[in-house]
Amino acid sequence: MDEFTLIRDYFSTPDFVRKDVIIGVGDDAAITQVPQGQYLATTTDTLLEGVHFLRQASADAIAHKAIAVNLSDLAAMGAEPAWINLSLSLPEVDNQWLELFSQKVQELTKYFSIQLIGGDTVKGKLAVTITAQGFVPPESVLTRVGAKPGDWLFVTGTLGDAAAGLDCLQNKLKLTDKSAQEYLVARHSFPTPRVLAGTTLRRLANACIDVSDGLMQDLQHILKGSNVGALLHLDKLPISKELGSSIPELQQALTYACTGGDDYELLFTIAEEHRVSMESAMASYNLPVTCIGQITGVSGKIDLRLNDQPFSFVSLEDRGYQHF
Amino acid sequence: MDEFTLIRDYFSTPDFVRKDVIIGVGDDAAITQVPQGQYLATTTDTLLEGVHFLRQASADAIAHKAIAVNLSDLAAMGAEPAWINLSLSLPEVDNQWLELFSQKVQELTKYFSIQLIGGDTVKGKLAVTITAQGFVPPESVLTRVGAKPGDWLFVTGTLGDAAAGLDCLQNKLKLTDKSAQEYLVARHSFPTPRVLAGTTLRRLANACIDVSDGLMQDLQHILKGSNVGALLHLDKLPISKELGSSIPELQQALTYACTGGDDYELLFTIAEEHRVSMESAMASYNLPVTCIGQITGVSGKIDLRLNDQPFSFVSLEDRGYQHF
Repeated sequence: MDEFTLIRDYFSTPDFVRKDVIIGVGDDAAITQVPQGQYLATTTDTLLEGVHFLRQASADAIAHKAIAVNLSDLAAMGAEPAWINLSLSLPEVDNQWLELFSQKVQELTKYFSIQLIGGDTVKGKLAVTITAQGFVPPESVLTRVGAKPGDWLFVTGTLGDAAAGLDCLQNKLKLTDKSAQEYLVARHSFPTPRVLAGTTLRRLANACIDVSDGLMQDLQHILKGSNVGALLHLDKLPISKELGSSIPELQQALTYACTGGDDYELLFTIAEEHRVSMESAMASYNLPVTCIGQITGVSGKIDLRLNDQPFSFVSLEDRGYQHF
Repeated sequence: MDEFTLIRDYFSTPDFVRKDVIIGVGDDAAITQVPQGQYLATTTDTLLEGVHFLRQASADAIAHKAIAVNLSDLAAMGAEPAWINLSLSLPEVDNQWLELFSQKVQELTKYFSIQLIGGDTVKGKLAVTITAQGFVPPESVLTRVGAKPGDWLFVTGTLGDAAAGLDCLQNKLKLTDKSAQEYLVARHSFPTPRVLAGTTLRRLANACIDVSDGLMQDLQHILKGSNVGALLHLDKLPISKELGSSIPELQQALTYACTGGDDYELLFTIAEEHRVSMESAMASYNLPVTCIGQITGVSGKIDLRLNDQPFSFVSLEDRGYQHF
């Protein structure tokens, strides 16, 4: 089977078709139309076997994660996703694998009202590169550089679940509560990009990033980008009941929440005047958000507190996912 | 060295900065602005070591080819390139390699007035994925589906050089003329995307594709897409003096020209009424184009002629680059 048949069979008839896609899969390039007056947001992420997903990861989990991490990046800019390009490197043509992978792509593109507009298939070690594109109004772009002293520091959802789930999969963490373990593993394997939260934060948040490499590391990106510091209340960190009840030792739970990667929650800063509007908007969508601290003027410094007392982990600030 | 430092060091200060890039490398996604009234063209291509380039390929040749193949896809749609995203998979951080790679990226982005707006770096087997974006006016999009019986079949530049160059590199072809060999190897390692030819063909060509998998195979894409056939004059195929003088046996030279991949020339069909305007425009830019045949109404059929006599290679029609 050649590349063309492969792509044609699995990806050429999208379940979800957008009117702004003039030419999708099948020509030399896709042709699309960005709405007048909107900016284009573009992001690319590559997932490699053994680095971003385990060797035993299922095809649908890989497809899910590849799409989720890219939509999460768009969400962190306040952008609404529209189109994705897929580059797939496969060691062999495995129809069962491709069927499962493409079913998940179809399911998610439909769910998020986005369209697969093109791609490439090559023979090599299993790797998935997705480029996602979306729109954001010019005055609503969320960046890492707008945080201001006094801003409240918020995060969506819960932290640390994905890292604990990965440890369960790798037998580094053994839980007696099987349903809690299943929950944590699902948070690792099928992360939820906070797409609606991202567009909701337009014009409300001053700075935003997605938590992909761990809270401490991603918070540092905001602090460095915005030339500010932060007060972080460890006792306020949102920890799921599944993680909290499984890990009775506080420091271990906090380590997951502070340094665990792959949660894909949004971390954002917001001025006092917009806090209430943001909280009611999020509540009306049933999107949980938690205030975990406040931005300070002390550039680059994270001031950790536990029950209002200064607290320190041994070199916690330096931890987080390192790509090399 | 972590991913962030790596990207920051080599790719964060582009030599060429475009006004339509609002946010480039460094945030969760790039933010750009498509000109009002223009369509967006997007294409993705992955290059893998051992598949798309030889293990011994230099970093600058890899960078060149990765950019060229993507700009070639945009050119085949009539699109003007604007921005590229780079996803780089590297087995290790090799500063000398990265220096050479990034210098070539800088050189080409400057040459083509495009900007690197984002990317991703992962640890893995050497692989380069580029997503290129550009613009094309709605009424000027070139596709594979518009060829009409009677259209002249044209190709830019010369055919077969890149495949012969690859054979030289792999010692499958040994030439006594070293300067011819150097030329052919350069055509393989540093292909020229026909960017200006692509925009020149807007509103003139009826169908267009880039010759990446070999003339016969890429011509078939036009024929199938447009539901037409073609008369192909083998004696008219543009063969460089370097290829022609090195390969005295006609059938071998024709095999390179008909089935050799990686030339990245544009193959297009044009109505009689636009032929003269196209030829003068191309001549004014010093872009060589050659009429190699004509579109017929016999769907899917390539009618090969040599000096106006029917001619056939053994299953030549089926040959060309197969990705799996």
